[in-house]
Amino acid sequence: MQGLSFKKTLTLRKNLPPPSESNEARIRVSLAGICSTDLEIAKGYMGFEGVLGHEFVGVVEAAPDPNWIGRRVVGEINAACGECCFCVRNMRNHCSHRTVLGILGRDGSFAEQLSLPVQNLHPVPENLTDEEAVFTEPLAAAFRITEQISIRSEDRVTLLGDGKLGLLIAQVLKDRCRLVVVGRHAERKALLDRWDVPSLSLDQTAPLQHLSDIVIDATGSSKGFDLAQQLVRPQGTIVLKTTCAGRPKVDLAKVVIDEVTLIGSRCGPFQPALEALAQKKVDVYPLITEVFPLKKGKEAFRKAAERGVLKVLLRP
Amino acid sequence: MQGLSFKKTLTLRKNLPPPSESNEARIRVSLAGICSTDLEIAKGYMGFEGVLGHEFVGVVEAAPDPNWIGRRVVGEINAACGECCFCVRNMRNHCSHRTVLGILGRDGSFAEQLSLPVQNLHPVPENLTDEEAVFTEPLAAAFRITEQISIRSEDRVTLLGDGKLGLLIAQVLKDRCRLVVVGRHAERKALLDRWDVPSLSLDQTAPLQHLSDIVIDATGSSKGFDLAQQLVRPQGTIVLKTTCAGRPKVDLAKVVIDEVTLIGSRCGPFQPALEALAQKKVDVYPLITEVFPLKKGKEAFRKAAERGVLKVLLRP
Repeated sequence: MQGLSFKKTLTLRKNLPPPSESNEARIRVSLAGICSTDLEIAKGYMGFEGVLGHEFVGVVEAAPDPNWIGRRVVGEINAACGECCFCVRNMRNHCSHRTVLGILGRDGSFAEQLSLPVQNLHPVPENLTDEEAVFTEPLAAAFRITEQISIRSEDRVTLLGDGKLGLLIAQVLKDRCRLVVVGRHAERKALLDRWDVPSLSLDQTAPLQHLSDIVIDATGSSKGFDLAQQLVRPQGTIVLKTTCAGRPKVDLAKVVIDEVTLIGSRCGPFQPALEALAQKKVDVYPLITEVFPLKKGKEAFRKAAERGVLKVLLRP
Repeated sequence: MQGLSFKKTLTLRKNLPPPSESNEARIRVSLAGICSTDLEIAKGYMGFEGVLGHEFVGVVEAAPDPNWIGRRVVGEINAACGECCFCVRNMRNHCSHRTVLGILGRDGSFAEQLSLPVQNLHPVPENLTDEEAVFTEPLAAAFRITEQISIRSEDRVTLLGDGKLGLLIAQVLKDRCRLVVVGRHAERKALLDRWDVPSLSLDQTAPLQHLSDIVIDATGSSKGFDLAQQLVRPQGTIVLKTTCAGRPKVDLAKVVIDEVTLIGSRCGPFQPALEALAQKKVDVYPLITEVFPLKKGKEAFRKAAERGVLKVLLRP
């Protein structure tokens, strides 16, 4: 089996053993997406070794329950033990013994085949293309915000970041609140204009200081948090979507003085993401920069890391 | 008027002008308390210059409404404009134009007299001694936690810090949840034992990793946050009570991965604090290390900064 594997360096390997967990589903990958986390992992973040990738759409080839065979699916990335104190509290994404597709102890989706527990799978509605379905996982991460905090229509919400994840979050939130996106890219502004989402460049944020009820940091940069602190109002909320290596210096005293709430936000619910895609409420096509064949995976990674590039997809 | 004033250094000044705001109450201070924030301010934190001190009990000498004259009072420390966007949202403690007693643009309580708006004052119930009443402000800060987060009886709450504020928080929370205090001082452990509050030393915390529903950082040290992150469970809550100068390095990625909520917590409600003191539900006497006359204020500050010392009071 061919796959894009990381161990100190990124390597296209042609003779990987296919996944053989008999108690899981084996899925032939149709399309996979490169996420910023993959770029971080390929720099050594998380200390992961193995096949990278956690965004995918594919077709079930084998499964303990034969009803799954032949179905087109997407899959939740956290494989839980089902028995630990977090699993029994319905916090499977935080299972103490979890493996995570392409991130922690489990080979990922940048390969011809992958393996996941059946309970992680979601059938893909027929009216979705593979190009749309492959966005289910990051779109679910965007919907996670709506599970964690109550967002009211009158709330002033500032979204920091007009990258891949930011543009999904913008589409999820745009009709739910008074949203402004702070971005870096002129061509994204045009896209946001088309979606009727107001946007500002970084140097236009001064008048917004301490006026946002909610600030969402999807910058992917450790600098995002400082700006979030400048923009959030006292007793406001900062949602942290950015994961990056290192320990940024943080003004914790300001968190106390302004009584701000910070909330970390990771993986989200697949069902609302699939519904939004099926109802064409989220437009993912403008987010696709390029599709590479898997065998050009290293080139795809270089492309994905370039400034101004949005989603790069891999087709095995 | 005599007062303990800070401008680059701490100085006992004997010829301060008495407060003369005709639209505020003038209060003769009976007793004032030194808080860790005062020690930080005396090191330059907040850039404050003027009379220090924000904890006090005293007697009203003059007021726009003569009904207040002669009453024994404690006072909320944030003086608000009443008109800004935060004041009109009932967030007076976060008023954009606020002054704060002995902390921001307003002389404080380490003096013979101080001035505060009448609406900041609370009459002290007769059955409280001055020594009890002077704890109202820090006890209100402890009660603030119960306003900000919902604490259930089954919640495992770990309180980091057995200092002045920690011991007040411990008494507020001990009958509301499954509380454990992590402290540094053997004699405080004896006190916590007497209050039926389980406590551990720092080197006993390893078995508690990732098991606390709520962790409260009242260590007063930038190291408290790291320990809080180790002890809080995924999707748990960290309440930040520590304000110290500087920008500690923080593992924000871990906040995201564990989807932890952080909440900054500052000033709190005086009414429940006064009620708890009046009902003798909170014992403050073991927290008083020493009472100094105001004229020995500099000596009192040195004492308050010593390791193992709890509350030092000043009597004008």
